[in-house]
Amino acid sequence: MMRTRPLKVALLGCGVVGSEVTRIMTTHADDLAARIGAPVELAGIAVRRPDKVREGVPAELVTTDATALVKRGDIDVVIEVIGGIEPARTLITTAFEHGASVVSANKALVAADGAALHAAAEANGADLYYEAAVAGAIPLVRPLRESLAGDKVNRVLGIVNGTTNFILDKMDSTGAGYSEALDEATALGYAEADPTADVEGFDAAAKAAILAGIAFHTRVTIDDVHREGLTEVTAADIASAKRMGCTVKLLAICERAADGASVTARVHPAMIPLTHPLASVREAYNAVFVEAEAAGQLMFYGPGAGGAPTASAVLGDLVAVCRNKLAGATGPGESAYTRLPVSPMGAVTTRYHISLDVADKPGVLAQVANIFADHGVSIDTVRQQGKDGEASLVIVTHRAADAALSSTVGALRELDTVRGVASIMRVEGE
Amino acid sequence: MMRTRPLKVALLGCGVVGSEVTRIMTTHADDLAARIGAPVELAGIAVRRPDKVREGVPAELVTTDATALVKRGDIDVVIEVIGGIEPARTLITTAFEHGASVVSANKALVAADGAALHAAAEANGADLYYEAAVAGAIPLVRPLRESLAGDKVNRVLGIVNGTTNFILDKMDSTGAGYSEALDEATALGYAEADPTADVEGFDAAAKAAILAGIAFHTRVTIDDVHREGLTEVTAADIASAKRMGCTVKLLAICERAADGASVTARVHPAMIPLTHPLASVREAYNAVFVEAEAAGQLMFYGPGAGGAPTASAVLGDLVAVCRNKLAGATGPGESAYTRLPVSPMGAVTTRYHISLDVADKPGVLAQVANIFADHGVSIDTVRQQGKDGEASLVIVTHRAADAALSSTVGALRELDTVRGVASIMRVEGE
Repeated sequence: MMRTRPLKVALLGCGVVGSEVTRIMTTHADDLAARIGAPVELAGIAVRRPDKVREGVPAELVTTDATALVKRGDIDVVIEVIGGIEPARTLITTAFEHGASVVSANKALVAADGAALHAAAEANGADLYYEAAVAGAIPLVRPLRESLAGDKVNRVLGIVNGTTNFILDKMDSTGAGYSEALDEATALGYAEADPTADVEGFDAAAKAAILAGIAFHTRVTIDDVHREGLTEVTAADIASAKRMGCTVKLLAICERAADGASVTARVHPAMIPLTHPLASVREAYNAVFVEAEAAGQLMFYGPGAGGAPTASAVLGDLVAVCRNKLAGATGPGESAYTRLPVSPMGAVTTRYHISLDVADKPGVLAQVANIFADHGVSIDTVRQQGKDGEASLVIVTHRAADAALSSTVGALRELDTVRGVASIMRVEGE
Repeated sequence: MMRTRPLKVALLGCGVVGSEVTRIMTTHADDLAARIGAPVELAGIAVRRPDKVREGVPAELVTTDATALVKRGDIDVVIEVIGGIEPARTLITTAFEHGASVVSANKALVAADGAALHAAAEANGADLYYEAAVAGAIPLVRPLRESLAGDKVNRVLGIVNGTTNFILDKMDSTGAGYSEALDEATALGYAEADPTADVEGFDAAAKAAILAGIAFHTRVTIDDVHREGLTEVTAADIASAKRMGCTVKLLAICERAADGASVTARVHPAMIPLTHPLASVREAYNAVFVEAEAAGQLMFYGPGAGGAPTASAVLGDLVAVCRNKLAGATGPGESAYTRLPVSPMGAVTTRYHISLDVADKPGVLAQVANIFADHGVSIDTVRQQGKDGEASLVIVTHRAADAALSSTVGALRELDTVRGVASIMRVEGE
């Protein structure tokens, strides 16, 4: 039985994602109506520059006054694809106050201020959904929040930024350096003119915060996420990784501590074995491993960005939110009951791959090995290579606290016989 | 705000999955309560043989009278993990009539009679959820039904039976024949004493029916699914696949026809290129590719069976169904509005790999090529090998209707110069 009065949708932002949302809502209106149980109608589209509105976007719906649009009072759902903190935050909050539910693709905002937004939604009996904020079309928020609601997630490990994966994949397959690979990514449209958010790991860190919060039922903001970008990854690092049977990926890793009393969230480049499924994730694709107590290891893979994939996630949420509206119910809101604290990076246990340039004389290895022992870090393998009075040591450690590994490296830098620390990289996925 | 009166759950069946459900409901009761918003309580467990009840299952809850349990009237949710058509169907229908929602892991029943069960649920304002019926812990039903609700799915291609994947993986990695690999699977507990449901493809066909129905919003039962098992796959087939840079997998494939006016669903062994992500799915793991218009290619990977993974899926559904109960709402029910018909296997377009033993004399290749041309099937590659007056021809076709390929093979068998058809296998995933 279909309701005939349409649900009204306001769209904030009409760039790559917004215009794709508009296109699908127009061309697939009958399917959406059948799946929701009522027609949905685009009631207004707020843009900054109406002269830039794309083909296929109904001109009569376009407005520059986003505030007036979300205050109309007849809007059932607001779709926010503007991005950034403001004006998105104020517009979303205003939408809740005027009775609308919200579907957002805004990872930066949810990662910075998710708790307050969820509270505002709840106070107004509205929904806040944001599947599109993490890894584009790949279902992750809903599987973590709903499919795994009866399980205990211990770890989330993934490639959640397509730009950096494209760059690392190019470096790996062509031997190119970072700048050269970035230039190619920019030329092909995989990197933005200002690539900071991607290459410095801010984008991945926002996604890690969102995933950790949902996975562990606690509050995690982007400020809780340890973040290292990939700008310092060199062609030599990639070559070292290859010699170890590994490749380098920028990983987002969210873990429950072994004692269960805290969690960690971090983004950094890491070596992973070529046999790990994440190693074969090419170009701008994303993939996320989830380890849960009962389910075991699950992997989700797909396009992590782009107009159409992101629109797919937005519209999946739109259908869910509209169904909830019709049922007079709301979907699952924030679940932060565990109140697990987020530990700093030093508490993470991981493995390190360290390349040292050292003097080629007797006793250097013993000196270096002592430093590791003094800091309680156990060495797994050492490879020593001599060249013209200099030598290099490549050391891979066993698992140790990141803080202990950092102070080991600090102490190594103090040694006279250590000419330089050529590279340091964590080793994951084993 | 937590409701204090518990939701009451009846469990039907307490084998491998049921005892794991019981264990998690007991050990993780606080987490489940927090996530649902009310405590859940196991109110009864129906088993056939009470003397076989496992450790950790509260004896005072055990009954042999499943009918009385679902008729109690105070049960909020019935979890059905008995399997098979009857008595599961009658018990589920009775549960709906007495006000309960149902979570089921029963692929055979849902694939045979899903429409009637959904109708019974709807008539009683109840939910029917069955994530655990397809691919164990891997979220598939919910992502297809909810995450992709705003998209148009064109294809589902996957490995959905762990037993057969284990057998094929062993054949591929050790060169073993089918019987030998089956024996190993049985010894390790991957195959049941009677392996028919797995090796003849019935289990995969049930899952294909469920996935096709949800993906294409139409009714598909197991009788609509073309089914071929793997009992006829030989070590020679696997070796041929290797020579082509392929491996053999038992695939479930659900496709929308190119003209959009019908769908197909099938289960059969097929060669897929080693570069395809499904080729690297090892042992008893499952993986499913979903191709959607806007989302692109998504993959879902994980353990497809086993007590704990299946229990994870059951409990995720339990949380959802309980939340719906508390909200006085129901989740998405059957969506079959497209009413797309299911075409028979002959209408599927695919590629064939055919090995023929032929007489080693001039003109044979021309004869064979003519047969393909007569049936409108275009040849991609031919490899010819002579040996002692006999020769073999290995032919790979371009895409053609399965019916045309079948009649081509029929006509080849009639040729005097064709001594035998050594193997025929479809080629997918390209």
